[in-house]
Formats: sequence, structure tokens, C-alpha cells
Amino acid sequence: MDMYGIILKKREGGALTRDEIEYFVKGVTDGSIPDYQTSALLMAILWRGMDMDETYALTRAMKLSGDVVDLSGIDGIKVDKHSTGGVGDKTTLIVAPLAAACGVKVAKMSGRGLGFTGGTVDKMESIPGFKTALEPEEFFKQVREVGMSVIGQTAHVAPADKKLYALRDVTATIDNLSLITSSIMSKKLACGSDAIVLDVKCGDGAFMKNEEMAAELSNMMCEIGKADGKKTVAVITDMNQPLGNAVGNSLEVIEAIEVLKGHGPKDIEELALKLAGLMIYLGGHAKAADEGHEKAKAALENGAALEVFRRFVAAQGGNPGIVDDYKLLPQHSIEKEIRASSDGYVAEIKARGIGLASQHSGAGRATKEDEIDLSAGIYLSKKVGSAVKKGDVLATVYGNDAGKVERAAAEAEKAFKISDKAPDAPVLIKRVIGL
Amino acid sequence: MDMYGIILKKREGGALTRDEIEYFVKGVTDGSIPDYQTSALLMAILWRGMDMDETYALTRAMKLSGDVVDLSGIDGIKVDKHSTGGVGDKTTLIVAPLAAACGVKVAKMSGRGLGFTGGTVDKMESIPGFKTALEPEEFFKQVREVGMSVIGQTAHVAPADKKLYALRDVTATIDNLSLITSSIMSKKLACGSDAIVLDVKCGDGAFMKNEEMAAELSNMMCEIGKADGKKTVAVITDMNQPLGNAVGNSLEVIEAIEVLKGHGPKDIEELALKLAGLMIYLGGHAKAADEGHEKAKAALENGAALEVFRRFVAAQGGNPGIVDDYKLLPQHSIEKEIRASSDGYVAEIKARGIGLASQHSGAGRATKEDEIDLSAGIYLSKKVGSAVKKGDVLATVYGNDAGKVERAAAEAEKAFKISDKAPDAPVLIKRVIGL
Repeated sequence: MDMYGIILKKREGGALTRDEIEYFVKGVTDGSIPDYQTSALLMAILWRGMDMDETYALTRAMKLSGDVVDLSGIDGIKVDKHSTGGVGDKTTLIVAPLAAACGVKVAKMSGRGLGFTGGTVDKMESIPGFKTALEPEEFFKQVREVGMSVIGQTAHVAPADKKLYALRDVTATIDNLSLITSSIMSKKLACGSDAIVLDVKCGDGAFMKNEEMAAELSNMMCEIGKADGKKTVAVITDMNQPLGNAVGNSLEVIEAIEVLKGHGPKDIEELALKLAGLMIYLGGHAKAADEGHEKAKAALENGAALEVFRRFVAAQGGNPGIVDDYKLLPQHSIEKEIRASSDGYVAEIKARGIGLASQHSGAGRATKEDEIDLSAGIYLSKKVGSAVKKGDVLATVYGNDAGKVERAAAEAEKAFKISDKAPDAPVLIKRVIGL
Repeated sequence: MDMYGIILKKREGGALTRDEIEYFVKGVTDGSIPDYQTSALLMAILWRGMDMDETYALTRAMKLSGDVVDLSGIDGIKVDKHSTGGVGDKTTLIVAPLAAACGVKVAKMSGRGLGFTGGTVDKMESIPGFKTALEPEEFFKQVREVGMSVIGQTAHVAPADKKLYALRDVTATIDNLSLITSSIMSKKLACGSDAIVLDVKCGDGAFMKNEEMAAELSNMMCEIGKADGKKTVAVITDMNQPLGNAVGNSLEVIEAIEVLKGHGPKDIEELALKLAGLMIYLGGHAKAADEGHEKAKAALENGAALEVFRRFVAAQGGNPGIVDDYKLLPQHSIEKEIRASSDGYVAEIKARGIGLASQHSGAGRATKEDEIDLSAGIYLSKKVGSAVKKGDVLATVYGNDAGKVERAAAEAEKAFKISDKAPDAPVLIKRVIGL
């Protein structure tokens, strides 16, 4: 077996065998296959595609390229949750406490933000003292005792994905469903949970631009999860406008706490209850998804989820006082309001534009090495459908660098579209796949 | 402009602009574009193809990536000849003297052999004292005085092609007509002649397996040559069986001299006259290709071409005595005959098999670094269509290493197929394109 033959076979439209795929992933991981052969194969995969057997073999080989977390020391059904990435998506910080409050064990690894997309690890790091790296035994112990832990993904999880993704990113070979599936699912499967709830975003601020593409990806990911013996369900959700009102790290932590207190924005509460309900059902704590949803709602209303959140923050070294005093979080020194230039209705708030504005305010990174301002970001006072008068505040940009805040405000302003007619009400939760 | 955007555009089926192609070729040449991006683009080109404008822009940029030889110091129309590579193809050593004897100026650069395909530079080096590297002024002077010179191609000609070819070779991205055309034509156009005659091989021992593919490639190369202001004609010729009877370096020099003396194999004489006739016509020394052919035939019959060959050898430091005494060439010490195992007719002599056998005898290289045995090779006593009796000698393998000769003989034996019925007479010259 050799890499030339593998490239040639895929180029000619052949299906690669499991052995060939394992040879490829091993060579990528140990560096024995040069990048120029890997990128030629990646482009041939974009050209010819991969069938489900190939996609599963690739996912499995990537999962096995590094550590596979063994969660068997934690009793009960462990349920993971993953979002394909969006703007204002702080759901993990709400969903995990909701599910844990209902008995689900959530042992989750998360990533950092890049470009216009945020990451849960950055958000958590805005909590003073919070540790996103724990020793495995601490991690397991916390999940057993608190019901949840969220830490940063280690370099030992699916290292083949790290190398392949870096190469795909610079060779225009991202956009293939099999490659996307194997990238996401190899990491999720390596993280060791028994069941997985996927939040697949679609729209302007997501990688999948429309519902059909999101459904195709969802079907493939659910099938791959099941092939690996994990119950997998996907929820397709809207990412045309940002989720909730807050975009930025400490701003999103505050909003997550507000939701857990029962007075957060309704869109993010609705999505959090949906995802948590599915996790509760897959975790065996409800007979159906609807019952899971009811239980999640109860845990929100009776404060149980907020209590889990406090314990989670404290267990990871963070100051739980932030729940009651947001002033303990990083503070901005500059703010700039964006106002409506005419009367009408908010017809569009482009998620991508707001995500870029948030990045420019200091909340996000252009490259992995960039430092971020944990207090920076944007708060939306209006959402799609809101009636506005000329001069109303649409949004406020926060930060600590006047130039960055100015630039972000200009970017954010372009994301808004005001029209004379009220737009159709946006549908946040579009479809559940794999139930 | 950036390489990512160029890859993405081609991946989506777009046509690259001349600026984009020049940016790419410059980056390949100076090493600023990493190989993994280049190989991704190459695979995208195999996928989406390139139109004629792109192919010409690529060829031109590659031609201009290094030295472009200025032959203006030599009076008259300079005509080049190029073969796409085959087994037993010693035509340059016959065609160039024929054309030069009729007044054409032939300033030619040739390559070395690799794998089962021979190269003119290696063949010439079997002549004692022969120099394949000349200073430009010596080269021009010789063409002016003798009418011809053949030297090795320098590293300064189309360096972008060298880099791209090396990468295509290991990423399964050779087989694309635009890439093949740009590789061949960038070098030919950089060599500075006014007109080019291409010998495009097709069949088992050639890269193009059938006449249709060879015709497509020929059309494209002729169009590109003309776009660059050079008269370009292609002859499609058979490479199912080896050309002539001799395969190997000094063996082919002897056969070339035999043709020039008027008693060489008829197939190679026929092809040499055809190619020389076209060169004479393009060089302005005949009113039509047929008249060129007649002139070439006269130069063969009256000994003028043989005389040019003697002067050419002497001018490049070689011993012209080899023309009359083949014992002055490198000698083999071992030979092994291959005999017919039954009565019948020779139905097939696979060119590729004989080429590999010649390589294994010591006459060729597996890698560029291998040393070769200039005396080694194979002499075919029979050709396709010959009637044979059991025990007749089909071919003889020559060399200086018993193990290599044994291995080569086993390989050569497999290349022959004897059948009861006489096969159809093979057609050597299939088509002329671009006249």
C-alpha cells in the first residue's frame, strides 16, 4: 500500500478500503505522509466524495489517532453536546447545568473561538479563577459529584484531525460533508460519552448556509455516531441572526446566567430547553424527548440548574459570586451605541457581520495566537422583527480600545437592515434528526 | 491575489486569469507557494480542467520562469523536434542530420532516460569523448557551421516545470492534457527555435495509450505552439512495439548510423524521413511536406546526412571513427538469446515490456541517480508480423552483469506473443496534425 496509489484510486472515483484509510490517517498523524500528498488526496475527496463506509472508516481512524477518553469510571449514561459553531451561542453554559440538574452526566470538552465564531473555553475563562484544564481524575470526580464539567480539548484528542484541519484550511478543502463529519465526530467519539446531541447551525453565520445542507450533514453525523455505537441526535437551528442578545465572552456568561435565573432572552431559552430535553431523554432520565423538555423546564424554574452552575464554577476554581455580582467579571471601559437611522422593523441582523464586529471589538481572534479582551463584544437591544423608531439604540459595542470599538461599531451597523414591513417571524428550531 | 483564492476558484470550476496563473507559476518557481497548496491546485485542475487560454497562460508563464534561449545569432529558420518518449526511439540522431543536410538549422536540447523510456543524451554519451554540455557560444557556432547540435537541457530552462513535474509525479496529477502540454511546450518554446515538429507516441509503450488521446494532445500542443508564434506540427506514431530493432544506448547509436548508411530497419527509416521532411518544409527548404520528404530521402541516399552526423560527432568532441568501427563504442561481455517456444507469427512485442527489460539489463535508470551501462540493451531479431519457427532467436539481451541480463531476458520474453495467425500489419505513422 502506498499513498500514490491511494490518491490515484480516489482520483479515479474508487472507494478506499478501511486499510487504505487507516494507512493514510496513521501517516498523517506520524508525519510520514508529506502534506503535498495529503492535500492532493483531500482535493480528490472533494471531487469524488466518500461513501458512508469510507466516512466511518475515516472518522474511526481519526478518533483512534490519539487518546480515547474512558468515562466508564462515571456511573450512568454520559451525554455530550456539540454545536457546529455560531454567533452568540452560549448554550453549553445553560444546557449542561439543565441536563446535569436532571441526572445526566455531562463530561464535556470544548474549543476556543476563531474568526467570527466564539468558543466555550474563552467564555469560561472570563470567570475569575476558572480553570479550563483539569487532570483526568479531577475531571471525572467533578462529573460524578457535580454532574458536569467542561474543560478545554487536549492536544491528545484526535491529533489527526488537528493536522488535517490545518491543511484543509489553507487548501480550500473544507467543504465536504464526509470531511466535516469525520472532523467533528472523531473528536466527539474520542471524548467517550455514550450519547451525543448535535446542534447543527444553518444560515448566514454558520458554515452550512441552508437547511438542506445542514440536514445532509446531520444525517451523516447521526449515522456515523450510531455506527460507532453512540446514540446521536441532531437539531437543526437558525444562525441567520445571532443567538440571544449578547455576543462576547463575559457578556455571554452573564446572559447564560440570566437564562438560568429565568429572565434571559426567549430564543436562547427555547433552544437550551430543546437541547437539554434531548440530553435528558438520551441519558435515560425521561421516556421521551417531550418529557425531557418538561424536566429541563422544571429545573430552570425551580433554580436547580442555576445551583448546578454555581457548583460547576466553584468546582473548577472559579468565583461563584459572579452569579450574583456581574461586576466581578472583566469590565469594559468604552462603549458605543448603534442607533436606527429610520423608523421601521428590524428585517435582518446578519450573524456573520455581528460575529466579525465582536471579533474586531477584541472579543475574538483572527489567528490562534491573538490575545482577546474578555470584556469586549456587542449587546443587541433589538432582534429581527423588533419595531424601531429612528434614533432607537439597536446595539451597543463594548471594549477597552477605542479604535477597535469604532471599527466594530461600523461593522455591526452594516449587519442591521431596517425595512418598512415587519419580516416573517424567524423559526429558530427547524428540525430534529436521528430520534 | 492569494493562492487560497486561486485553488478555490479552480475547485469551483472557474477559469483562472493570466495574472492568477503568473502569480502561481512565480510562487512555484521562487518557492513562496508551499507544495501542499500547489498539489491541491493540481488536483483541482485534473478535476475541472483548463481551457485553451489558461493552458497557454500556464505554458507561457512556465517558459518565462527561466532562461529563454536566443537563437537569433544563427541565420535561417531554426527547427526543433521533440518526441513524447518511447522505446527504441533514436530518431533524433537520424532526423537532425537529415534535416541539417538539407539546410535546416537544428539547435536541440535533449533529456536523459528514466524508467523504461530512453533519452538522447544517454545515447550520445555512449560515443567516446562526446560532450553533451556546451557553452552557448560553442553551441551556436556549431549549429552555424555543422547545421546541428544536440546538448543536454540545462536546469535554467523552464525551472517551474521541473518543480511542478516532480510534484505531479508523486501526487497522481500527471494525466491532464493541459498540464502535459504546458510541461512539454514550455521547454520547447524556451529553447528558442522558430518551428517545432512533435512526434507524439501512442500505444503500450507510450504515455498516451490510444490514438484519440494522442490526437487531443497533439491538437492542444500545436495550438499552444502557434499561440506563441511558432509553426508547430505533430505526427502521431505507433509505440505498441519498439521502434527499430535496437533498444539500449550504444545499440541505438549503431542502429542510427545503420539507417544513415541506408541499411537500417525500414520502420525507423520511414519515421525519420517523415519527421525530417516536415522539418525541411517548416524550415523553408521545401515547398511542401512531400518535397521535404524527397529531399530527406536524397540526403540519406547520397550520404550527405551521414557526413553531417560525422561532423556533428566530431564537433562535440566525439570520435567520428565509431561510424566505421562500432567496436570503438562501449562493449558488452554477456549476452543471452530469447528463442521462440513454438512455430507461428510474432503477434505482439510489448514496447513497455522491452523498455523495462532494457532498463533491467543496465541500460536504464529506476531513479535519476542510477548509473547506467551504455553497452547494455536488447536487440530484436524479429518484429511484429515475422514468421518464426520454434527455437528461432527472437531477441538478444546484452550487458555486463549476469544477474541483470538474466532478469532482463525473463522480462523481454514475456513481452513477446506468438500466435498461429499472422497479425494485421502495424501502422507506424497514424496521422499528421497542424499542417
